[in-house]
Amino acid sequence: MKVLIVGANGQIGKQTVEKMVNDDVFTPTAMVRKEEQVKAFQDMGAETVLQDLEGQVEDIAAAAKGKDAVVFAAGSGGHTGADKTMMIDMDGAIKSMEAAERAGVKRFVIVSAIGVYDRNKWMSKAPYYSAAKHYADEWLMRSGLDYTVIRPGGLKNDRGNGQIKVAKEVERGEIPREDVAETILASLKDEGTIGKDFDMISGTDDIADALKRL
Amino acid sequence: MKVLIVGANGQIGKQTVEKMVNDDVFTPTAMVRKEEQVKAFQDMGAETVLQDLEGQVEDIAAAAKGKDAVVFAAGSGGHTGADKTMMIDMDGAIKSMEAAERAGVKRFVIVSAIGVYDRNKWMSKAPYYSAAKHYADEWLMRSGLDYTVIRPGGLKNDRGNGQIKVAKEVERGEIPREDVAETILASLKDEGTIGKDFDMISGTDDIADALKRL
Repeated sequence: MKVLIVGANGQIGKQTVEKMVNDDVFTPTAMVRKEEQVKAFQDMGAETVLQDLEGQVEDIAAAAKGKDAVVFAAGSGGHTGADKTMMIDMDGAIKSMEAAERAGVKRFVIVSAIGVYDRNKWMSKAPYYSAAKHYADEWLMRSGLDYTVIRPGGLKNDRGNGQIKVAKEVERGEIPREDVAETILASLKDEGTIGKDFDMISGTDDIADALKRL
Repeated sequence: MKVLIVGANGQIGKQTVEKMVNDDVFTPTAMVRKEEQVKAFQDMGAETVLQDLEGQVEDIAAAAKGKDAVVFAAGSGGHTGADKTMMIDMDGAIKSMEAAERAGVKRFVIVSAIGVYDRNKWMSKAPYYSAAKHYADEWLMRSGLDYTVIRPGGLKNDRGNGQIKVAKEVERGEIPREDVAETILASLKDEGTIGKDFDMISGTDDIADALKRL
């Protein structure tokens, strides 16, 4: 399965590419913005494509061309303002969806954030962040794409243990980025996750089993 | 025609309410955020409802209940940041659409901005502003509401002369806010504008004629 990872240089993106390189099912292509980000992925054994998410849809579509799936794992990060959140987390995500459609790639997995489907659960200190995620997710779910929306809880850098709790709605909690990356791969392997959107925190179910019960 | 004007305290909103008060076709209700904004509208002879656009959809729906149309003329203004642009110009607009749907109000007119349908025409200095308008418009056009999307060029405070140029796409130009307000009323009077979205600048056609030719 040839997969374009948008936001490959992010923490979840990087782990996703690395896991895909080591999994016979996948051939990942890391989409990165800067020349100096390329080498780390080449060293890993991954293909790369230089493309800015703030660029044109046509160019993102060219990067997606010939792939079987697109994973959107980009985010402007906590250090930028609401303007970048809007242009990367929302407009960048929607441009990636438009690019997938234009390139004829049906499968699309997005990494969102826990609870954003409900305005009453939006972050009170940064509602615009939750709004960006909310509208990107809604856009995807209303598109014709074969989507999976993964909404992890608070992200940690601890090693993952492959044990999660998923449901349309779960209580607030945390989860290692590594388990989010594993869940991306598991979602792509399980066609039953097409058309599903779910919250996710650390739990007691094996990832593949948890996804099957959605 | 009973109309809820969201963003009534804005410059276009205020002129829209005032024109409606003086037009037998309309009974306007000004939705305002602050108690101290009420009196100016009462003095005008308009009904008012106190409701914050950053509040709950249910409460906005209660304000829309029993109306024949909703006009969205709100904007966070040039002095706020991208966070408020996102929460007012985009999320506030989409909440107003959800409120109209919930209240059973089919007709919805939105004041957007020239050219925002095309990312290549977005404001280079504030693309998030154009993005907010773009996504609010797109959301409306994909809703089941009887929409009209009005995208005026650069707004001026000069008196209007009732002469405009409209089309799906027109060159950049300016237009008095008063002519935008007149176009809102004219759109509500002309069912032919349902399902239409258009750029608008000052021109040489009478407003009602220009809308008929869309």
